[in-house]
Amino acid sequence: MLVVHKYGGTSVGDLSRIENVANRVAKAKEAGNDIVVVVSAMSGETNKLIEYANYFTPSPAKKEMDLLLSAGERVTAALLSIALQAKGYDAVAMSGRQAGIVTDTTHTYARIESIDPTAMQNAIKEGKIVVVAGFQGVSKEGLVTTLGRGGSDLSAVAIAGALHADQCEIYSDVDGIYTTDPRIEPNAKKMDTISYDEMLELSSLGAKVLQNRSVELAKKLNVKLYAKSSFIDNEGTLITQENNSMEAVLVSGVVLDKNQARVTLRGVSDRPGIAAEIFTRLANENINVDMIIQTTGTDGSTNLGFTVPQSELQNARRVMEKFDHDIEGMDFNDHICKVSVVGVGMKSHAGVAAKAFSVLAASNINIQMISTSEIKVSMIIDEKYGELAIRMLHEAYELDK
Amino acid sequence: MLVVHKYGGTSVGDLSRIENVANRVAKAKEAGNDIVVVVSAMSGETNKLIEYANYFTPSPAKKEMDLLLSAGERVTAALLSIALQAKGYDAVAMSGRQAGIVTDTTHTYARIESIDPTAMQNAIKEGKIVVVAGFQGVSKEGLVTTLGRGGSDLSAVAIAGALHADQCEIYSDVDGIYTTDPRIEPNAKKMDTISYDEMLELSSLGAKVLQNRSVELAKKLNVKLYAKSSFIDNEGTLITQENNSMEAVLVSGVVLDKNQARVTLRGVSDRPGIAAEIFTRLANENINVDMIIQTTGTDGSTNLGFTVPQSELQNARRVMEKFDHDIEGMDFNDHICKVSVVGVGMKSHAGVAAKAFSVLAASNINIQMISTSEIKVSMIIDEKYGELAIRMLHEAYELDK
Repeated sequence: MLVVHKYGGTSVGDLSRIENVANRVAKAKEAGNDIVVVVSAMSGETNKLIEYANYFTPSPAKKEMDLLLSAGERVTAALLSIALQAKGYDAVAMSGRQAGIVTDTTHTYARIESIDPTAMQNAIKEGKIVVVAGFQGVSKEGLVTTLGRGGSDLSAVAIAGALHADQCEIYSDVDGIYTTDPRIEPNAKKMDTISYDEMLELSSLGAKVLQNRSVELAKKLNVKLYAKSSFIDNEGTLITQENNSMEAVLVSGVVLDKNQARVTLRGVSDRPGIAAEIFTRLANENINVDMIIQTTGTDGSTNLGFTVPQSELQNARRVMEKFDHDIEGMDFNDHICKVSVVGVGMKSHAGVAAKAFSVLAASNINIQMISTSEIKVSMIIDEKYGELAIRMLHEAYELDK
Repeated sequence: MLVVHKYGGTSVGDLSRIENVANRVAKAKEAGNDIVVVVSAMSGETNKLIEYANYFTPSPAKKEMDLLLSAGERVTAALLSIALQAKGYDAVAMSGRQAGIVTDTTHTYARIESIDPTAMQNAIKEGKIVVVAGFQGVSKEGLVTTLGRGGSDLSAVAIAGALHADQCEIYSDVDGIYTTDPRIEPNAKKMDTISYDEMLELSSLGAKVLQNRSVELAKKLNVKLYAKSSFIDNEGTLITQENNSMEAVLVSGVVLDKNQARVTLRGVSDRPGIAAEIFTRLANENINVDMIIQTTGTDGSTNLGFTVPQSELQNARRVMEKFDHDIEGMDFNDHICKVSVVGVGMKSHAGVAAKAFSVLAASNINIQMISTSEIKVSMIIDEKYGELAIRMLHEAYELDK
């Protein structure tokens, strides 16, 4: 079996942890597998290098940042290969370039365009364990590029796809995907399996185990993805294509996202296209609008509400202030949160959303906004009820069973 | 004027020093020059990475070490480019590969085989300051290589040669080449000019400002080399081709090397080829024999003496013990030192060596061994007289004038 392992910054955070990773990789090799390992920078390294650059300017050039930041993963790859060799295994370290990863020229947030797996395949044929520096590639112009935060996951999935690996195991300090955050609900259960689509909804909602880009790519390339712990031994969670047994499960998980703020525009003038104009301006400023609600009062005046990440609230306020002739008043509220219920079972079962509404109503929690997708219901509520709502929903959908 | 600057690890040892280097480079650019800067890793970084590798094994694979160690210079190059950009200068950072440096495949001690200066030339044409990560290149197999200790000097000289730069300025924490070590002789004077050959003799004898490989390459490529300080402003020392004015100076400098040990073999058997056999064995063990003296007693017995670096004395002893049938006895003495007088003027002036002998004799310092070249006289004396000899010779040749 050909398996791609990926170890994040915490898993390779110091030399003894790199040794621990070497032991895990060695064990997988001894079990008769071919192994490609993708590694992140040692935890703290990337932030340290960013701080170094920010000593000179808050906005360093992106090409320079890529040359700078790619150094961290190269160091880890070399060290892990050395650790494996010290244990008697034939290993070879490769930079992103040497592994054949070609990206576009969008420095610091490059997209992988192609992978030439020849060098990795040749090394595998020679019985070598291949250790690849994650997070990086090379543009067609020959310059080092990086893939953005979480880019090492992306490297691992793309490499698994290019090598037609049997599975891709993403190791972190979390041992899988849970029905909800165990710090909020101690009865949260680790899931054995989850579909790509559910995972996408969960990760975009704040579950930090896997980056959306990686899950999307895994879905596209049909890569079997495991979320596993690098510290304890258990099966982790398999993220894969939706199958029949999954549909039997109504709801997979519930998620709390506290990084939300709500903007309410009162008395928006009724000239045509005003809403489009507002959201275009927000988009031009790279402000990520999530949920939108529009209400028309009995007097014909229109109120417009929408949510943005808390970090973008000030920017949103600045944009809105330019509309002073078109808006009577505005409210900004960052004491809200988003509670979401996710599950592929919703597709074939009615009443999932209704149950969520009645559960919250039973606890006198007011729902300010609602948005739904095929496999998700999200509700904006007062921030102080967030944890309570999660616990009530977790119990109501019997996720602890 | 096209000028190559090279800054060593101490000169870029922290962020404020990198800023200081950026100011120096900016000043040179403002003076109307085109500038290429070659940088080392921040001081301590390379040793830290070596320690990391040694955590796993004392003998890590050389390919892995090259991927590991090359990270340090890449970080500095990116940071210096960012610092220059922050000051409003157009700069671009390049890895060794991006700068076009191609080496052989001798990992951790690669030789530069060729430089394709196109990328650097294009950047210079666009008015950019080019910042290159020193110490590294890429082999014809496409793998990262490093050039060994002092490799950044070598990068700088090779780049200066490939670009036909007007001069190459090597910046360190020393402001030039002195007539002797100022810690021994406070009257030591900084030289304005010195020939490549004198510099080669001085650096092989322990002056640590410039590596021999770099001076040899500068001589071969006829690169005008300046040794300068990155902390204070002065002219430094120009290392260049020998010229007429230099010959007028009898002696350029005197050097003390305490890293020497002497091996004396008593009663070496007189079978033919025994000396050749001894030195072949030493060479096979990579033991660097410097001076050799052979004496035949009136009774026909032969004594053989030679010097090796102190660090190789134990190895030499091990090799010699295999000759127990051919050698009556041996002495090992690491309480010796080597005092050398260097100067191109010796070629055309007789009596330089004789003066050295008489100076030492006048102070009752016994000379144990002598070796001479066209521009150098070296003498082995008791270690405790080393500093005294240096001061006497410095005065005798009027180097303080």
